[in-house]
Amino acid sequence: MSRTPDTWILAAQCPSRLGTVDVVTRFLKEQRCYITELQSFDERLGERFFIRAEFRPEHAGFDAGAFEAAFVPRAGEFDMTFELTAPGTRPRTVILVSRADHCLNDLLYRYRIGQLPIDIRAVVSNHPDLEPLAAWHDLPYHHFPVSPETKPQQEAQIRAVIEETGAELVILARYMQVLSPEMCELLSGRAINIHHSLLPGFKGARPYHQAYEKGVKLVGATAHYINNDLDEGPIITQDVASVDHTHYPEDLVAKGRDIECLTLARAIDYHIERRVFLHQGRTVVFAR
Amino acid sequence: MSRTPDTWILAAQCPSRLGTVDVVTRFLKEQRCYITELQSFDERLGERFFIRAEFRPEHAGFDAGAFEAAFVPRAGEFDMTFELTAPGTRPRTVILVSRADHCLNDLLYRYRIGQLPIDIRAVVSNHPDLEPLAAWHDLPYHHFPVSPETKPQQEAQIRAVIEETGAELVILARYMQVLSPEMCELLSGRAINIHHSLLPGFKGARPYHQAYEKGVKLVGATAHYINNDLDEGPIITQDVASVDHTHYPEDLVAKGRDIECLTLARAIDYHIERRVFLHQGRTVVFAR
Amino acid sequence: MSRTPDTWILAAQCPSRLGTVDVVTRFLKEQRCYITELQSFDERLGERFFIRAEFRPEHAGFDAGAFEAAFVPRAGEFDMTFELTAPGTRPRTVILVSRADHCLNDLLYRYRIGQLPIDIRAVVSNHPDLEPLAAWHDLPYHHFPVSPETKPQQEAQIRAVIEETGAELVILARYMQVLSPEMCELLSGRAINIHHSLLPGFKGARPYHQAYEKGVKLVGATAHYINNDLDEGPIITQDVASVDHTHYPEDLVAKGRDIECLTLARAIDYHIERRVFLHQGRTVVFAR
Amino acid sequence: MSRTPDTWILAAQCPSRLGTVDVVTRFLKEQRCYITELQSFDERLGERFFIRAEFRPEHAGFDAGAFEAAFVPRAGEFDMTFELTAPGTRPRTVILVSRADHCLNDLLYRYRIGQLPIDIRAVVSNHPDLEPLAAWHDLPYHHFPVSPETKPQQEAQIRAVIEETGAELVILARYMQVLSPEMCELLSGRAINIHHSLLPGFKGARPYHQAYEKGVKLVGATAHYINNDLDEGPIITQDVASVDHTHYPEDLVAKGRDIECLTLARAIDYHIERRVFLHQGRTVVFAR
Repeated sequence: MSRTPDTWILAAQCPSRLGTVDVVTRFLKEQRCYITELQSFDERLGERFFIRAEFRPEHAGFDAGAFEAAFVPRAGEFDMTFELTAPGTRPRTVILVSRADHCLNDLLYRYRIGQLPIDIRAVVSNHPDLEPLAAWHDLPYHHFPVSPETKPQQEAQIRAVIEETGAELVILARYMQVLSPEMCELLSGRAINIHHSLLPGFKGARPYHQAYEKGVKLVGATAHYINNDLDEGPIITQDVASVDHTHYPEDLVAKGRDIECLTLARAIDYHIERRVFLHQGRTVVFAR
Repeated sequence: MSRTPDTWILAAQCPSRLGTVDVVTRFLKEQRCYITELQSFDERLGERFFIRAEFRPEHAGFDAGAFEAAFVPRAGEFDMTFELTAPGTRPRTVILVSRADHCLNDLLYRYRIGQLPIDIRAVVSNHPDLEPLAAWHDLPYHHFPVSPETKPQQEAQIRAVIEETGAELVILARYMQVLSPEMCELLSGRAINIHHSLLPGFKGARPYHQAYEKGVKLVGATAHYINNDLDEGPIITQDVASVDHTHYPEDLVAKGRDIECLTLARAIDYHIERRVFLHQGRTVVFAR
Repeated sequence: MSRTPDTWILAAQCPSRLGTVDVVTRFLKEQRCYITELQSFDERLGERFFIRAEFRPEHAGFDAGAFEAAFVPRAGEFDMTFELTAPGTRPRTVILVSRADHCLNDLLYRYRIGQLPIDIRAVVSNHPDLEPLAAWHDLPYHHFPVSPETKPQQEAQIRAVIEETGAELVILARYMQVLSPEMCELLSGRAINIHHSLLPGFKGARPYHQAYEKGVKLVGATAHYINNDLDEGPIITQDVASVDHTHYPEDLVAKGRDIECLTLARAIDYHIERRVFLHQGRTVVFAR
Repeated sequence: MSRTPDTWILAAQCPSRLGTVDVVTRFLKEQRCYITELQSFDERLGERFFIRAEFRPEHAGFDAGAFEAAFVPRAGEFDMTFELTAPGTRPRTVILVSRADHCLNDLLYRYRIGQLPIDIRAVVSNHPDLEPLAAWHDLPYHHFPVSPETKPQQEAQIRAVIEETGAELVILARYMQVLSPEMCELLSGRAINIHHSLLPGFKGARPYHQAYEKGVKLVGATAHYINNDLDEGPIITQDVASVDHTHYPEDLVAKGRDIECLTLARAIDYHIERRVFLHQGRTVVFAR
């Protein structure tokens, strides 16, 4: 495997300045950590620096706490924020769904075979339909119905689940409800949505029907972090499939499922591998 | 080759009604024409029928005029419009360009090696830059400068070239001027534009810069028939290329060139092979 | 949907000869069947004709038996073989698997949501592992262990299941055993295999490891009908994914799963929609 | 642009050992060079380390010679080979062609607009056909006819051109002659060939005809460094296009042209941007 079971990840960003790479790589050397993969990028227009290193301690007694404590002052000199991720880390995750189950089914399959290293604590839905699917994977399922009147209360229920489970990641796997600004704020940078169009084209409801009306020859999907502005969050990854005149709206819906699944799964993979960096509404993705 | 040198094309459309295929195929049989490739499609929502047949007369004395005259009354029974295209037909073509030469260079290469069966009568531009490229291919080049004040006169000059050359096809190979509604009307169904975005996303000017601002992970190109509504004409074909954070606007421009060339060339190919049908602002494309 | 619930399919092939389209389309007209989609192709080098029509009877009392009986003599004049497929037809299917479950999981999902109109009668495996997955979908699971010594007996067990269930279609969803020539013969034209390489590259065992050794930059999958010659059967469809130096063999295995699932599902879809024609070791696929 | 006009590239490789990144990045820091983009990779199975850094000196008087001299002893401690590439470097290049001109036309277009920073010193061919194309771009053209008897002499002529021009890069843009082992040896690591198939499938002559016979649904192209073993050299990049039953061999040839052009141009771009590392018959490509 590309990442072996003893591989750590260090991801960091800071303003551009001479020595940004060196402060990271010299420290890793001093700590006797062998860098197996490294990517850095300087965003010239925004003067912002991003770095991601996979490394393997060359000695038995690697102590993450000591490592972080020793690195903090050095990072501080560069106004650098960083995150250290241990081998085998599986972020606590809550998945939100509505009725469509293709993304959930796909994610749970990858989860089951160990290809998606997340720790799913709950599946939450405004409909009861997908409970059996969650149950088959031995996952708690919360059915929180929603109506225009009960929306705030329902969102409070969801928030409670997120907080009680200590979820670090929230996946909107075709959850068809708009979240409140407060909720978006709360989940900033840790909630990934899949939208079934190639944003910024066809925002909002029924994008495949919009695409049909427009007569496009490609349909797409966009995985993005949610933010206050509906379907405007920072894009992580996108994909397309070609279609033609024989595809009525329902055919686009069917054809789009595969693209949605793949795009969402890839975005999550990038996120948990710390390949995605957020800065001012855009992403740097050290994709693979 | 898929189409051999003796292959004709019959393309037709009409309202949906029992017998629409039969009226075409029975006639071809009676005329002793062997159908080598056939595609038909009934657009259910619009109740519209489309058919395209490639065929080879099985006898020496095939007479196109007599064929058409004999088919007119039968087509009439179905309110069917049709078009017969002879082997080796190369539509008279005028190409409009501005300064960017990648699409023109690509088209002229395909033209030169015989892969793009068009009869280029003129290259027209609002700039002098691409004259040498046209000259090397022995093509007349008309430089018609344009300013906001002279726009009507300049468009009249272009129209004169189109009329004098008897152009059946006009290709806007990155012509960066908006055509007047009258011109769009005149060229309806026979003028193909390449727009450097995946429409309906990023209409108008500087789409790659818009795409950069938005942080998309795919850039695209759209070939479409022009109509009165800027960048809203019926789409013929689209394509994309993946990009990432290392692509500044100028990099998107560079990367997009290949996609624009391929997309425009494919659209022209579909058009001259009579694979594209226009109906109510949308296309049926029997692609290959 | 592209095919509405009252849409029949007629698929036929015969030697090339004037009138091959007409004999089909005239008959459909006479039977008052409206053709909603039609594709025909004449294979010039082999002088072979293929046609596929989707149609909708325009009258209530459509009688398939009478239709076929009436068409037989006409088809006979052209040495034409044909097959009529009713709306809602779901071929009886047996799926063979070993241990890898990604293709099975993908197929069962599509099956469950009604996107893959097959009637799965049994899942058969040489391992017990996938029994729970089959059970969750309420499908019979047969575990027939195999060893070099028991291979003929095990194959007889499989054949018995195929015969008892009246399976019209057999899907080898990563079944890692080579079938005997007799079995291949028995299943000719109705058994679809997924091979995890872009055939003819990397035949045989461990194709991803072969691909890694070779340093290729694309890995692929091939869905094909099985025949006597291992991994040499007629190709239905293929797909690829790009990889790079960071993909060790296990990463190729992981990355390839998605491509395998999509390629196999598409091939089955083409097969049951009667879009695939077999002739002399090659296929004509009226893809969509 | 991703690389600004003051951006240098340092590319290096060595055996895996703690400190491989640090020896490079610490030196760049000391030399007051700001790293704008960095990629490193440790090839675990071969225990080999690869690194590529784009950097910008933060001071006016950057001296490449002094830089290299100072880095040599440090690199030596790691058995590291390295290459420093100045901004605006355009390697002296000889292009070999036969009769097909699509790749040459494509390369010369990119060259003309400044997208392909090479310094073309000569176009060499065993046929006279492409002389006008070279002439239009003001490039010397050498016509060296070849027959089985004169092959050694003709190759000596080519070698003389390569030596006289001091060519650092040789591009085989559909040069249809096999080079001798001596020539392959001489050009090791600096001669890029485009083969019109997805290697290792369809080696040797007429790959599109082989692909047709096999009935594949994708055709491809492979750009690779040449070596002694025909069509077996280290692969740089590959691409594919989908085809179907309507594509006769000549259609595959036509369709393949676009893929060949794009694949070759991309490989050259990777090569001159020092993104490609060769080691034991395989490549590491820090693609973009």
